[in-house]
Amino acid sequence: MEFTAQQIAELINGTVEGDTNQVIRDVSKIEEGRPETLTFLANPKYEQHIYNTEASVVIVNNNFKPEKPIKTTLIRVEDAYQALAKLLQLYESSLPKKTGIEQPSFINQSALMGDFVYIGAFAYISEKAKIGNNVQIWPGAFVGEDVEVGDDTIIYSGVKIYKHCKIGNSCIIHAGAVIGSDGFGFAPGPDGEYQKIPQVGNVILEDLVEIGANTTVDRATMGSTIVRKGAKIDNLVQIAHNVEIGANTVIAAQTGIAGSTKIGKNCMFGGQIGVAGHLKIADQVKVAAQSGIGKSVVKDGTVLMGSPAMDAMQYNKSYVMFRKLPAIYQQLQEIEKKVSEK
Amino acid sequence: MEFTAQQIAELINGTVEGDTNQVIRDVSKIEEGRPETLTFLANPKYEQHIYNTEASVVIVNNNFKPEKPIKTTLIRVEDAYQALAKLLQLYESSLPKKTGIEQPSFINQSALMGDFVYIGAFAYISEKAKIGNNVQIWPGAFVGEDVEVGDDTIIYSGVKIYKHCKIGNSCIIHAGAVIGSDGFGFAPGPDGEYQKIPQVGNVILEDLVEIGANTTVDRATMGSTIVRKGAKIDNLVQIAHNVEIGANTVIAAQTGIAGSTKIGKNCMFGGQIGVAGHLKIADQVKVAAQSGIGKSVVKDGTVLMGSPAMDAMQYNKSYVMFRKLPAIYQQLQEIEKKVSEK
Amino acid sequence: MEFTAQQIAELINGTVEGDTNQVIRDVSKIEEGRPETLTFLANPKYEQHIYNTEASVVIVNNNFKPEKPIKTTLIRVEDAYQALAKLLQLYESSLPKKTGIEQPSFINQSALMGDFVYIGAFAYISEKAKIGNNVQIWPGAFVGEDVEVGDDTIIYSGVKIYKHCKIGNSCIIHAGAVIGSDGFGFAPGPDGEYQKIPQVGNVILEDLVEIGANTTVDRATMGSTIVRKGAKIDNLVQIAHNVEIGANTVIAAQTGIAGSTKIGKNCMFGGQIGVAGHLKIADQVKVAAQSGIGKSVVKDGTVLMGSPAMDAMQYNKSYVMFRKLPAIYQQLQEIEKKVSEK
Repeated sequence: MEFTAQQIAELINGTVEGDTNQVIRDVSKIEEGRPETLTFLANPKYEQHIYNTEASVVIVNNNFKPEKPIKTTLIRVEDAYQALAKLLQLYESSLPKKTGIEQPSFINQSALMGDFVYIGAFAYISEKAKIGNNVQIWPGAFVGEDVEVGDDTIIYSGVKIYKHCKIGNSCIIHAGAVIGSDGFGFAPGPDGEYQKIPQVGNVILEDLVEIGANTTVDRATMGSTIVRKGAKIDNLVQIAHNVEIGANTVIAAQTGIAGSTKIGKNCMFGGQIGVAGHLKIADQVKVAAQSGIGKSVVKDGTVLMGSPAMDAMQYNKSYVMFRKLPAIYQQLQEIEKKVSEK
Repeated sequence: MEFTAQQIAELINGTVEGDTNQVIRDVSKIEEGRPETLTFLANPKYEQHIYNTEASVVIVNNNFKPEKPIKTTLIRVEDAYQALAKLLQLYESSLPKKTGIEQPSFINQSALMGDFVYIGAFAYISEKAKIGNNVQIWPGAFVGEDVEVGDDTIIYSGVKIYKHCKIGNSCIIHAGAVIGSDGFGFAPGPDGEYQKIPQVGNVILEDLVEIGANTTVDRATMGSTIVRKGAKIDNLVQIAHNVEIGANTVIAAQTGIAGSTKIGKNCMFGGQIGVAGHLKIADQVKVAAQSGIGKSVVKDGTVLMGSPAMDAMQYNKSYVMFRKLPAIYQQLQEIEKKVSEK
Repeated sequence: MEFTAQQIAELINGTVEGDTNQVIRDVSKIEEGRPETLTFLANPKYEQHIYNTEASVVIVNNNFKPEKPIKTTLIRVEDAYQALAKLLQLYESSLPKKTGIEQPSFINQSALMGDFVYIGAFAYISEKAKIGNNVQIWPGAFVGEDVEVGDDTIIYSGVKIYKHCKIGNSCIIHAGAVIGSDGFGFAPGPDGEYQKIPQVGNVILEDLVEIGANTTVDRATMGSTIVRKGAKIDNLVQIAHNVEIGANTVIAAQTGIAGSTKIGKNCMFGGQIGVAGHLKIADQVKVAAQSGIGKSVVKDGTVLMGSPAMDAMQYNKSYVMFRKLPAIYQQLQEIEKKVSEK
């Protein structure tokens, strides 16, 4: 690609500060900027780099006020991060898109295929599956019996979708993710051995859901495990049977949600969080990484931390004291001594 | 399927309370019950739903005493959860079973194949592998050299089993699980670089073991990593080299067991637990989710919590105090002041 | 294989103490030793077993001083663990190596293939990929567009490598690992929905890197996610976009490193650790399992524990007090009472 700063600014509704004719040939990170590349500054943590980046053009927020002289050209926009998203989306959509059916692949004759699909070699489409228009199913992916995949969805290499699951439109499922494996349900018998509870439900991913690499979403015992519209799930996340994840909720890597728990919409979960089963978590709840949630959360917007989790500010205060515990103990012994001596 | 309440009751040795001729066409969760469906009540947490569920028939324990009027037909049994397991198993066994060898698949000519096997397209069976009767190996699974798979075992799509591993009868291995990858063993060299310790052992799964999606079980350095009969392992669990998991032990998602640790039988491990290497854990041990076990556990039936883990009741008591730490600290300062003033 | 103790000693530059003609036919673990097998003692925790192992020959460190009589033959070496590594490497290199291209596989005509490669059935090599000499790509692996794989690298079954990633020489990538999936980047919109930030960077694994089964390494937003020479990553680890892992750093299973964090060289990370994004961790840092690192670590050799992590010794001292908290609280109330009474 080759653009001028002015051309870029027009794409993202921005204003150029500096050389409108500056040529851009690639993108770079601000701390690794190279000449003739475009970069951006959104996280204030990286502001220091704008004063000596080698990048030729930097997208910044309208309200950015430099504290030192800047030698690069700026493009000012309302929201630098969103502008970057838009530019990179334009770039991606300009790349040639895979279509066609590679051989050898396996498509059951009862499967219904949309228009302009890409089916990679070694992909497997089972009986009665319905594949929408513009769907990409990459090499080695497995689509089970009676699975539906909505329009414009991308299923990367090695994804496995068990029977009867429903995948919405414009979803992205990353490599190695497993959708619809059996929930972990066993009835204990009298001799300590376990009877399997067959899991006869399914998984529903609504539109615009993204599922990370090697993440697992178990099918419901009965009914559906549901990930609502626009939810974004990172890598290696475990979503157990009959869980429901609310719309536009984001969950970072390695978090696990136990069975039948319902999480509200617009929540933000950090990485490596555990949530116990059969809970209800309100909307806009924020949970710090590595927290453990053992009770339902009824208040929207609650901010939690710790294991078991509590109000995040309270946790931080307690943790400051935890660090001081040996000194506190020492102090206590000294007081005890004084009191006893009196 | 279509049954009457009476027919269902006979299958699970139960007694009908209500309309014995009530027709059942599907199953549902009690909180999402629909007319002409069968549901169950085992977890008391869900009792509230039985009073207004739309499900037509509910399986309950013999000792269930409703606190309000109930409009649905009940089937009373000794153990509602076990009865459900049995019914769903009957249902599953009534579904048509996959058999036959799909093409293209890859079966080394030295492999031995049992009767009535299903080998999906793109499955790979290596030299000298032995596949038992009624085994299902789903599309894209990989079975390594000299691997044995016992009768009636199901290996789902994309499972990878490295060479020399032994899988018992009636096991289920879910999609994406990896059995027999190298243990994490390296000898540090003088310059900080590492020499790989080749892992020349294997993995043994005994009969009736279930392994969750994307779980990893590493092969032993020498000898065997062993999962004993009837153990149930959830998704995304890590079982390191030379670990042994006792019979009928259940381990929830994202737990990790470090190298050479031996876990007893009939243990119950929550999710996201970590167990250090070279430990021995007794039988019937219960461990709360997210705990970290750093020492061997010698007493059967111990209940643990925390990281590092301690007796669960003790942990809870300490954690109550942790929450109060800022107040405790405040109180201490005030006492100090008083004592100093005197 | 069949060797004498003397022959083994010569291979690892050791000296025999006992029967130089003792025949060795296999290897075993010291606690499961069998006659005519070779074992080793490196971890002092296992010393008890040397006094009654059935193994015929034991490799020990030069400085090992038995506390009881030993009936087996010893081979003394400078470093028993390194000697074992060397022996097992010799053994592995004596096994026949896979070469050749199995059918059906999919190799784009624009891909460049080195000499003596092994391409398993159902492996997929995309356009413009460059595969080095002696590379093994096992069945069902996926190598994306423009991916480079260096000489002598092994890519096991079901590994997925997205486009543009670069894999060095002598790397090992275990089954199910995903290299180059999209980083988790979304720009929040005004209505709570998220815009995807296309991830246009790649992943670079330098030489001698080992990646565990089902581990995920995300591609950079821009630039590269980098794992430096000789780093060893265990199973189910999450490495986010734009992370850098230093040379010879080892990371145990289920640890997660959030976006843009740079970890130094020769670090040792236990399992299930979480590291927040945008941090810088010094060299030779050691972190206990399950710790959570929320701040950069500037001092080389720091030893950390806890979540949030602190100096490990300090953590242990605080945790001892945490266990005592109910007693401390009790003591405090009693002092308060005494003080008030005076």
